[in-house]
Amino acid sequence: MNEFELIARLVPSLPTNKNVVTGAGDDCAVLDLGVPDKLILFKTDAVVEGIHFTKDTPPEKIGRKALARCLSDIAAMAGTPAAALVTLGLPEEFDPAIVEKIYDGLNAVARQQGVAVAGGETAANPGRIFISIALLGTVPRGKQVPRSGAKAGDAIFVTGELGGSLAGRHLEFEPRLEEARWLAGHFSIHAMIDLSDGLAGDLRHILRASGVGAELLKTAIPVSRAAKLRAQKKPALTAALTDGEDFELLFTVSGADAVKLLDAWKKQFPKLKLSCIGKIVAGEGVIIRDKASSQKLEAHGYVHFAK
Amino acid sequence: MNEFELIARLVPSLPTNKNVVTGAGDDCAVLDLGVPDKLILFKTDAVVEGIHFTKDTPPEKIGRKALARCLSDIAAMAGTPAAALVTLGLPEEFDPAIVEKIYDGLNAVARQQGVAVAGGETAANPGRIFISIALLGTVPRGKQVPRSGAKAGDAIFVTGELGGSLAGRHLEFEPRLEEARWLAGHFSIHAMIDLSDGLAGDLRHILRASGVGAELLKTAIPVSRAAKLRAQKKPALTAALTDGEDFELLFTVSGADAVKLLDAWKKQFPKLKLSCIGKIVAGEGVIIRDKASSQKLEAHGYVHFAK
Repeated sequence: MNEFELIARLVPSLPTNKNVVTGAGDDCAVLDLGVPDKLILFKTDAVVEGIHFTKDTPPEKIGRKALARCLSDIAAMAGTPAAALVTLGLPEEFDPAIVEKIYDGLNAVARQQGVAVAGGETAANPGRIFISIALLGTVPRGKQVPRSGAKAGDAIFVTGELGGSLAGRHLEFEPRLEEARWLAGHFSIHAMIDLSDGLAGDLRHILRASGVGAELLKTAIPVSRAAKLRAQKKPALTAALTDGEDFELLFTVSGADAVKLLDAWKKQFPKLKLSCIGKIVAGEGVIIRDKASSQKLEAHGYVHFAK
Repeated sequence: MNEFELIARLVPSLPTNKNVVTGAGDDCAVLDLGVPDKLILFKTDAVVEGIHFTKDTPPEKIGRKALARCLSDIAAMAGTPAAALVTLGLPEEFDPAIVEKIYDGLNAVARQQGVAVAGGETAANPGRIFISIALLGTVPRGKQVPRSGAKAGDAIFVTGELGGSLAGRHLEFEPRLEEARWLAGHFSIHAMIDLSDGLAGDLRHILRASGVGAELLKTAIPVSRAAKLRAQKKPALTAALTDGEDFELLFTVSGADAVKLLDAWKKQFPKLKLSCIGKIVAGEGVIIRDKASSQKLEAHGYVHFAK
């Protein structure tokens, strides 16, 4: 049983109440706590030594990554982050200087995005550092972008370049908060997700939530320089499809809006690539094609508990 | 350096913003997100295998405790819990049946208190189960009870009976949500905290935050049956003062309100003991006295990283 199978078993029995607009299954929980014009976004995300970083990772980068991952989830809903709490599980023989450096990195990205670090706690976690971040944000009421709104005929877009994140980008990525808010403010974004498990896996989250399929154009998928440099170990296209932790935005809009959106994006964000990589189709699953052929995409995204 | 010393070093440099009413240093963070008549309470709390429970603890009780601890912090602010997210760090060879039982226990206490479990995540944590709960609640604007409001002349009250929680109560306690809301709704509660580190330690949190001292009456401290049964190992009064995880409410009100409050409490909550254990005085530190003598209380509460 992997992470996703376990979640599918647990979700149906979770208690709910009138505050819940969207519960488990999207990038953030969406809550109505009575703010007249806004909904609340609520997210937790953990990074663990030996999995998301190593003993050799500079501690500032560990703290930065821990918060930036959560910020990327707020971005995927087109929200604005407000306040975070930090849960720090520490080995018994922890070095306070390392903890301070973890906070330095975390505080820096918080300041950059106007996020308060409103407290947290330390707990013993013998053997390894475990950091869980809880993050609150807001989104204009009704403007949150779910995973579930993709429609046949939509164009599929992705920001940036994909693959090879482990070479360094996974510690240094910029959560796409400004870009996501601009998108939701200027276009009807049907569905959006941030790429944490890899394009192939995360696209499937949108497809399943929306009850549709997708057709991708091989040559349109933006492959990162890091993935190309490592192409001897893994074909660069495979890396772009399946490597995790890109933290770019994947979203769909009506096909009729696609060209207009691309033009407006180039003016607004001239330094950040935006690629139309395919379209949403009726049915299910992912077809990937080039001029000569088309095939069913079997490749999965990174699954945390895969054995 | 223990947990509290580390926190004292980290807190001054935490970023803040206009949303923060109370940041690090109280039972919950208090945020203003624009709800007209309410403030938002935000809390995270972790339980770790080998520290807060063992390999032999029934998994339903682990889940129950994980959420109930957070609920107790919402109670300490006189708030109402709304929605929780669950971060579950799991050993690689986890048994899905155990995870489902953890959620059964957690869901049951959530339902009992009207709390939604709005999602969460699983992460690998080789070696042990690590559960972090993030909890959101609300409190009527201006009605949150801080740690910092105790004044010389206040009477000090504690609910229930203290000490010996490890004998079982730490897995089965009832968070005092209803009681705390009733208190704040009917009396001017100056300061409140829930007892997680032990009476001696948690009282000091109120005293330091309020800039005052306290005088306790030895015979007034309510000692639990569990503490008395274990008195051969540890004097029962010491247990009541220093054992952690009582999860009762400790609060102060004006001395002039004390008798009225005790009378009203007995009518409202006839089954739950309420004890006036002493008074707030000018100065600092804790004096404990009986008819014959008085002495400075040196005993500390349970400190998670004490060596």
